[in-house]
Amino acid sequence: MSADTAILSAEEFRARLQEIGEERYHHRHPFHLRMHEGQLTRGQLQAWALNRFYYQSRIPMKDAIILSRSEDPEFRRAWRKRILDHDGNSAGEGGIAKWLRLAEATGLTRGQVTGCEGVLPGTRFAVDAYLDLVRNRTFLEAVASSFTELFSPTLISLRMERLKEHYPWIGGALDYFQARLTQAPEDIDFAFHWVYQAAKTRPEQEAALNALRRKCDILWAQLDALYYAYVQPGWPSPGAFQIKEP
Amino acid sequence: MSADTAILSAEEFRARLQEIGEERYHHRHPFHLRMHEGQLTRGQLQAWALNRFYYQSRIPMKDAIILSRSEDPEFRRAWRKRILDHDGNSAGEGGIAKWLRLAEATGLTRGQVTGCEGVLPGTRFAVDAYLDLVRNRTFLEAVASSFTELFSPTLISLRMERLKEHYPWIGGALDYFQARLTQAPEDIDFAFHWVYQAAKTRPEQEAALNALRRKCDILWAQLDALYYAYVQPGWPSPGAFQIKEP
Repeated sequence: MSADTAILSAEEFRARLQEIGEERYHHRHPFHLRMHEGQLTRGQLQAWALNRFYYQSRIPMKDAIILSRSEDPEFRRAWRKRILDHDGNSAGEGGIAKWLRLAEATGLTRGQVTGCEGVLPGTRFAVDAYLDLVRNRTFLEAVASSFTELFSPTLISLRMERLKEHYPWIGGALDYFQARLTQAPEDIDFAFHWVYQAAKTRPEQEAALNALRRKCDILWAQLDALYYAYVQPGWPSPGAFQIKEP
Repeated sequence: MSADTAILSAEEFRARLQEIGEERYHHRHPFHLRMHEGQLTRGQLQAWALNRFYYQSRIPMKDAIILSRSEDPEFRRAWRKRILDHDGNSAGEGGIAKWLRLAEATGLTRGQVTGCEGVLPGTRFAVDAYLDLVRNRTFLEAVASSFTELFSPTLISLRMERLKEHYPWIGGALDYFQARLTQAPEDIDFAFHWVYQAAKTRPEQEAALNALRRKCDILWAQLDALYYAYVQPGWPSPGAFQIKEP
């Protein structure tokens, strides 16, 4: 077998995932760079929190689609945790509620956020493409699209530090990120091993790598939409959230 | 408004559901009547347990589809319980594992059951039509298709009594039914109130009633397939489970 068709070892496979992350994960996006350098205005952080709420609101739906495609109770029991993490056990708990508190800390009202009315079309299309991926691609690709969690703890740690430093008024509302620091490693551990076992051929491994690329694109495109609308040139689509700097 | 277009009160709506259940729920199916009269052979009960395992195995997938279609964390928190009820928190727990123990009590091996290889095509088509309903009909209809749980406790109580009486060798493996006696009323209580609130017009109420009819048809057709294959004339499809009476 040539190098291009030989199956990758677990170490090689993980190294390929890391390479993709270094190249494509949204830690390199100019919007995040500005955020971490303290260059975003409060209004720009509002736009970020509001648009990303739409992404957050779709995460349990995305995970339920994956759940609905698995015939294996063991897989479902492991994956079910993700829905619990985001929806919680009662009102006010879970990742969505935590994100809402972050959005409120930026000065938005609950009503502005939960209705998702001001969300940019570009955000909506990217997030909906994620639901489309997990619904319509192979089950292996659906699971592998969660591999961005390999990279999220590093980004989240940096972000928490920089948000506290540059935007102290938001510093008390970072519970969402705090929780993800422990949740994401548990999740990626399961997903990595499952995908590595399930991908029996090099083409299947390549499909999994491509699913990660596509997921990185989905995250990146959300920040492109934000940057274009609220940083440069600063043209939010008709009907989208308009910044009113306090 | 005429009687045909006026919105039904909660009492009227519930009465219409009851009527449908009395007419169409599978408590009236000849296969169940024979079961409850003690007229089924052990092989016929094996065929029932094996085919219904396919139905049981799809229940959490069905509920995850419904979960994936809800944008409301509160709805999802309530509905998530159903997946927990069937998958449990660890291997050996939950409705699917309990049904497997029932199937083993009939003399089947786990391997015969979990692979679903001997399942009748008629069972498969009916169950898959259930997944299709919750995936492709309106969300209201998807939720309303669970209304058969209004009728299941009565049937299950009778069935437990008769199974213990007529087939004592199965009597120790009725945990599945025992659990459903408490789970189903909790579930139907939520679903009834949700649907009654969500259906704002008489046509929406009628759509919910039709979803119950369709779900009754799905349950009935599974017993038709069993009856035809294993009772009269007794012609299981090529490849399907063959009874070997002990």
